[in-house]
Amino acid sequence: MSKTAEILSVGTELLLGNIANTDAQEISQGLSELGINVYFHTVVGDNSERIRQACEIAKSRADIIITTGGLGPTYDDITKETIAGCFGKRLVLHEPSLERIYDYFRRMSITPTKNNDRQAMLPEGCTVFQNEWGTAPGCAFEAGGKHVVMLPGPPRECVPMFRNCAMPYLRGLSDAVLVSRNVRVFGIGESAVEDMLHDFMESHSNPTIAPYAKEGEVLLRVTAKAETADKAREMTEPVVEEIRSRLGSAVYGVDVGSLEEAVFELLKNDGLTLAAAESCTGGMLAARITELPGVSQIFRGSVCAYSNEVKADILSVPRETIEKYGAVSEQTAFWMAENVRKHLKADIGVSVTGVAGPGASEAKPVGMVCFGISSEKGTKTYTYRFGGNRHRIRVMSVNRALDIIRRHVLNIE
Amino acid sequence: MSKTAEILSVGTELLLGNIANTDAQEISQGLSELGINVYFHTVVGDNSERIRQACEIAKSRADIIITTGGLGPTYDDITKETIAGCFGKRLVLHEPSLERIYDYFRRMSITPTKNNDRQAMLPEGCTVFQNEWGTAPGCAFEAGGKHVVMLPGPPRECVPMFRNCAMPYLRGLSDAVLVSRNVRVFGIGESAVEDMLHDFMESHSNPTIAPYAKEGEVLLRVTAKAETADKAREMTEPVVEEIRSRLGSAVYGVDVGSLEEAVFELLKNDGLTLAAAESCTGGMLAARITELPGVSQIFRGSVCAYSNEVKADILSVPRETIEKYGAVSEQTAFWMAENVRKHLKADIGVSVTGVAGPGASEAKPVGMVCFGISSEKGTKTYTYRFGGNRHRIRVMSVNRALDIIRRHVLNIE
Repeated sequence: MSKTAEILSVGTELLLGNIANTDAQEISQGLSELGINVYFHTVVGDNSERIRQACEIAKSRADIIITTGGLGPTYDDITKETIAGCFGKRLVLHEPSLERIYDYFRRMSITPTKNNDRQAMLPEGCTVFQNEWGTAPGCAFEAGGKHVVMLPGPPRECVPMFRNCAMPYLRGLSDAVLVSRNVRVFGIGESAVEDMLHDFMESHSNPTIAPYAKEGEVLLRVTAKAETADKAREMTEPVVEEIRSRLGSAVYGVDVGSLEEAVFELLKNDGLTLAAAESCTGGMLAARITELPGVSQIFRGSVCAYSNEVKADILSVPRETIEKYGAVSEQTAFWMAENVRKHLKADIGVSVTGVAGPGASEAKPVGMVCFGISSEKGTKTYTYRFGGNRHRIRVMSVNRALDIIRRHVLNIE
Repeated sequence: MSKTAEILSVGTELLLGNIANTDAQEISQGLSELGINVYFHTVVGDNSERIRQACEIAKSRADIIITTGGLGPTYDDITKETIAGCFGKRLVLHEPSLERIYDYFRRMSITPTKNNDRQAMLPEGCTVFQNEWGTAPGCAFEAGGKHVVMLPGPPRECVPMFRNCAMPYLRGLSDAVLVSRNVRVFGIGESAVEDMLHDFMESHSNPTIAPYAKEGEVLLRVTAKAETADKAREMTEPVVEEIRSRLGSAVYGVDVGSLEEAVFELLKNDGLTLAAAESCTGGMLAARITELPGVSQIFRGSVCAYSNEVKADILSVPRETIEKYGAVSEQTAFWMAENVRKHLKADIGVSVTGVAGPGASEAKPVGMVCFGISSEKGTKTYTYRFGGNRHRIRVMSVNRALDIIRRHVLNIE
């Protein structure tokens, strides 16, 4: 039976919305790697009665409680005394920690104030986690069959301390390993994916199959639990294969980060370069692609032709084409793709021109987007219709453009 | 006595650490603006027993429960039935929502699957929040003296729905009116802003002044509470003026959405057009600008010159300049700004070329970014150095480019 953990984050700044609880996110990822189930996160302010109340609830429903925040030197830092109190533990002075804190202030040429001593008071009998990234030490202890881990709040201290100190401590408590595979799907909606996999998802409990809808795509996470990572990974293989065979070419990658990453890999492997001509997406396609480090290997650049003059002057779209068919037309998309490829000397040219809103007409409603794809093999065009607001139409257009590149290179219709 | 709220976020993806709970952050900010205290956030997975348990706890300690997530069409979307059950409410079909969902699918030319109907099942007697940003409607109801608000999980749906639907609903529960003004600051860090305003912030409790650090900028939210909106707004005026006078030209706008919106307004009012030449930001500047509806009035387009050939061929940067000074240099930035303005026939040209990483050298370290700005007044260049990872360097570069445009147009050094 695997252990369960609860993350108890202490900090009024979280309740005011000053910061997002990224500590809980990072810790959850690490616990998932350790095969420890997380059933609850709780956030509470710097108030001893409410911390006590949240701790009692966590104690009643989790094997491991991980707290973040409230270990600092100020008077509203009360996590340690409150949590230790819930488990009937006293705080005692930890001399080595006190020395470290004084050393730290000496190095900074600051005179420590008396309240800094409080940071060296730790629950009796605990395992102390040295803080290499700040002053407040963390700690872990066991009481009444429960394990408690306390970490400082600032993410630059909390995250490395969790990875370097708490994870090794927790690893000793677990006997199972989890391995997750990410199957990425484009072009089929979440509910359709579920329809296609429903029986299969229902009949599997190890590995589990969980769908996540992302902007315009679906991520299927396949997670297996076993004694070793190799064994767990092996268990995922037939499930990943079955998903691939059911969803076909809509699966654009397994354990790849994004559509743009899949396209980058594909072009790199084939030694091909890319150029883009964008109208309604206005630079978003290029921005998504250039978010990837090292992409200059395959990406030559793009022209954001937001006005018709730029389409004509820079991309040499014939003025008659724009006049006759309009800027949002497959004819315009054709020249944009072909000419951006030629002018920017790339192997592949892709183009996007559409109505993201406002400025629609009956013939060209909001959400209508035309695409062009051009290479030595020739130039093709497509028209799609997307729903949602301006932002969503743009995001969906970028996704679709990336998928059009992928399918063109792989010769998939 | 002011009301207290608890945010109950439902989603296994949060417990696995796939995403941070930014919904809870945004909602907390809004509740703080409304003067509603938040004492707890709870995150729970897509499991009916644990959702029920978390809901019972929230019911026992808060006046208002706001749930996020689990309103979608799939089998693990069980928030509505579970929460409604805790309050003894049945779900009933809401015909207008069903029609909206079917309309949506018709517009997309997709055949809705049966499980989409589940999204239109809502607690009996609830106030329905139309979802303009996706398919799942949200809702609010009152039961046993408690108020429950349910919102979808994806942040692009949750946040606008909270702002546009839930906040007006919650405002109706309070007898005081809160008015918030957003003072936007660029170019001074959060701690420096706090230093410059500390005494002033300490001495004010109505209006309150709360700083929020955003990527590379600071938002100061001034919130006044009064019997009427007019009175509250009037109370904010002298505070906003005092902030303006202390922070000077670093205040780029009040109640403006973003730097790009401030630039859009400025250029529109002056009847000026803009073109951009981007290297390291790779389309991000254009993408940010074109996110604004109607921006084609002022934005002509951009060239993302990710390779040196594109800088030379399309932007006519002299090859000798690139060879002698490098692609990341004020000399290259100069020609990029001047020529993109001329080639794209704009009034103002802006350029960005820098090292976002990898690919740094000793002379040109990661984070070094050169900018050019060109208009009839002449062409100027700047160099900045940004810290952080690739993504942050790109975001900071876009922000800085927008501020350079703003200062150039306003003749502020």
